[in-house]
Amino acid sequence: MAVSPYFAVIMAGGSGTRLWPASRANFPKQFLDIPGPVPMLRATVDRLPPEIPLTQVLAVTGETLAEQTRRLLPDLPRENILAEPVAKNTAPCVGWAAVECLRRNPEAIIAVLPSDQHIANTTVFRGAVRAAMERARGGAILTLGIRPTRPETGYGYIERAEETARMDGGFAVHRVVRFVEKPDRSTAQLYLDRGVFEWNSGMFFFRGDVIRGEIHGQLPGLDAALARIAAAGAPDSDGYAAALREAFGLAESVSIDVGVMENARRIEVIPCDMGWNDVGSWQSLRDVTPADDAGNHVLGETVVIDSRNCVVVGRNTAAAVVGMEDIVVAATPDAVLVCKTSDSQRVREVVDALRKKHSRAI
Amino acid sequence: MAVSPYFAVIMAGGSGTRLWPASRANFPKQFLDIPGPVPMLRATVDRLPPEIPLTQVLAVTGETLAEQTRRLLPDLPRENILAEPVAKNTAPCVGWAAVECLRRNPEAIIAVLPSDQHIANTTVFRGAVRAAMERARGGAILTLGIRPTRPETGYGYIERAEETARMDGGFAVHRVVRFVEKPDRSTAQLYLDRGVFEWNSGMFFFRGDVIRGEIHGQLPGLDAALARIAAAGAPDSDGYAAALREAFGLAESVSIDVGVMENARRIEVIPCDMGWNDVGSWQSLRDVTPADDAGNHVLGETVVIDSRNCVVVGRNTAAAVVGMEDIVVAATPDAVLVCKTSDSQRVREVVDALRKKHSRAI
Repeated sequence: MAVSPYFAVIMAGGSGTRLWPASRANFPKQFLDIPGPVPMLRATVDRLPPEIPLTQVLAVTGETLAEQTRRLLPDLPRENILAEPVAKNTAPCVGWAAVECLRRNPEAIIAVLPSDQHIANTTVFRGAVRAAMERARGGAILTLGIRPTRPETGYGYIERAEETARMDGGFAVHRVVRFVEKPDRSTAQLYLDRGVFEWNSGMFFFRGDVIRGEIHGQLPGLDAALARIAAAGAPDSDGYAAALREAFGLAESVSIDVGVMENARRIEVIPCDMGWNDVGSWQSLRDVTPADDAGNHVLGETVVIDSRNCVVVGRNTAAAVVGMEDIVVAATPDAVLVCKTSDSQRVREVVDALRKKHSRAI
Repeated sequence: MAVSPYFAVIMAGGSGTRLWPASRANFPKQFLDIPGPVPMLRATVDRLPPEIPLTQVLAVTGETLAEQTRRLLPDLPRENILAEPVAKNTAPCVGWAAVECLRRNPEAIIAVLPSDQHIANTTVFRGAVRAAMERARGGAILTLGIRPTRPETGYGYIERAEETARMDGGFAVHRVVRFVEKPDRSTAQLYLDRGVFEWNSGMFFFRGDVIRGEIHGQLPGLDAALARIAAAGAPDSDGYAAALREAFGLAESVSIDVGVMENARRIEVIPCDMGWNDVGSWQSLRDVTPADDAGNHVLGETVVIDSRNCVVVGRNTAAAVVGMEDIVVAATPDAVLVCKTSDSQRVREVVDALRKKHSRAI
């Protein structure tokens, strides 16, 4: 049997608090079984196309989350869980994983996937991944673009140009004109109207040697770091941990999007419609869970009386809501958040306030 | 030293859920330290005038709450905690306690006090209790009336007539015309306007023989029950428990207000203003706790951002509220309630719903 060149790198280092109080510093979003039934990180691995062998699925996370990650992914070889000595955004994470894929197979074709997204249509997802990896074989860097359905200000966008190829399954490949950061409302509306902008899914596909080349050209600090890691021998060898720590000291702290993709030599996007959602706020539960007759989205033990369009989540606690409209109630045994649905993002203010109080509920 | 004739009977059998989720079937309101710093039952004992010796303070509760009550009142003799074999409203509770007071002192003058009220002004309270007990010595049944400040529909009222006496401390005693049940809004307004209606505090004062006489005349079932208990010997004697259980079987299930007071021979009221509050809903926290600059009343660990006129309670859990107005958020580790302040009473619907679901959070 031929050795598969396909690798997946799952970025599982997030420590976001956007779904606080369900998500925590030591229990970030990827571990949440929202919308369920399994944690998003587990679902991310489970939805991979079978062409990527589990032995070639790597997860990169922080040291404090490594054991939790291993427990959730017991079917991955233990050495496939890469624990970053320090968080330096996604470029070092991706670079390090690429080095380890290349160590195993110099012809590695790598899918880089966030670990905390919900994708409703696995079939379309797998088709898109196959198309992107096939296309990446020729040296392009691919990303998946999500067809925008509203003038969302919480996502980055990708502007696409002419179609450059048509892949199996009918997936069109387009040249990328540019990546743009989260826009303001009127710009987002413009993007939506223009029809040539996609949401940036944060999923990337490339050959290992291609990303190494881009990093060499764009991020000299990270490039030096990766050279040091590559020279250190296999992860279980003497001196690897020290080399890794030293290397992360050298690396620029920057996202792979900004640090590499925006200026990559040959970057393409495959627009697709696969029921993607980044579950980036409690409000987004409306998109990933069914509503009751009154428009309420509920998870866990809840009692919702005479209320409409609410998001109510009771995690190991009972959340009771009476006579309310358009609010979020998210409860855990040690904390509860109550806000207007449209204020979901303000959870950050709560976490900041709790941090100042040295509360244990963060 | 003369034996004191003064007894207090604390009615501590409540199993109300009006402050759910803080109050529970097995942790009713009287155990809550709201508004604090001590539980309301404890505060009830602590505010008694010193003329009532602790050895003559009895607390009547249910069997399931007896141990909890003893622990909260360790300074009371253990035998002073009376555990009802079955809950039959307040008339049997008061009758039984009266029998036990009379067993100790045939000239007992008894103050019957709810265990779950907040009284801001202890000095006025003590003065009123002294006045009522002194007046009760002559054979009257006294109650304390609370000057109404709003057309409250959640309380019973007492209509008073002419002044019959003026006691030490300037407390006026009035003849009671009638007790009236919780009125509707327009009737409550009428009562407020008339100026001769007081809120029924649920506190009563009488000689033991007087209440026994009233029960004899008005509640034959309870009268027979009390005779049986009285004949059974002291509570620690053989056969007392059986007699008690049998007696409670005979007793009418009725409140002392309806069963006795409304038709009592000689009943009087002392109007007073002592910062009384029955803490009967989360909304009532507004009356018993200070507000912050935005009109929010908070207890426990809370984060309240950009919100006004909210009641926010975090009991062993952090309650975070952002951008809300006029709502109640009451949270415990296993349940949270969210409703409009004006809907505070609808907590009953929540508890009913949870009961149907066999939830453990009730």
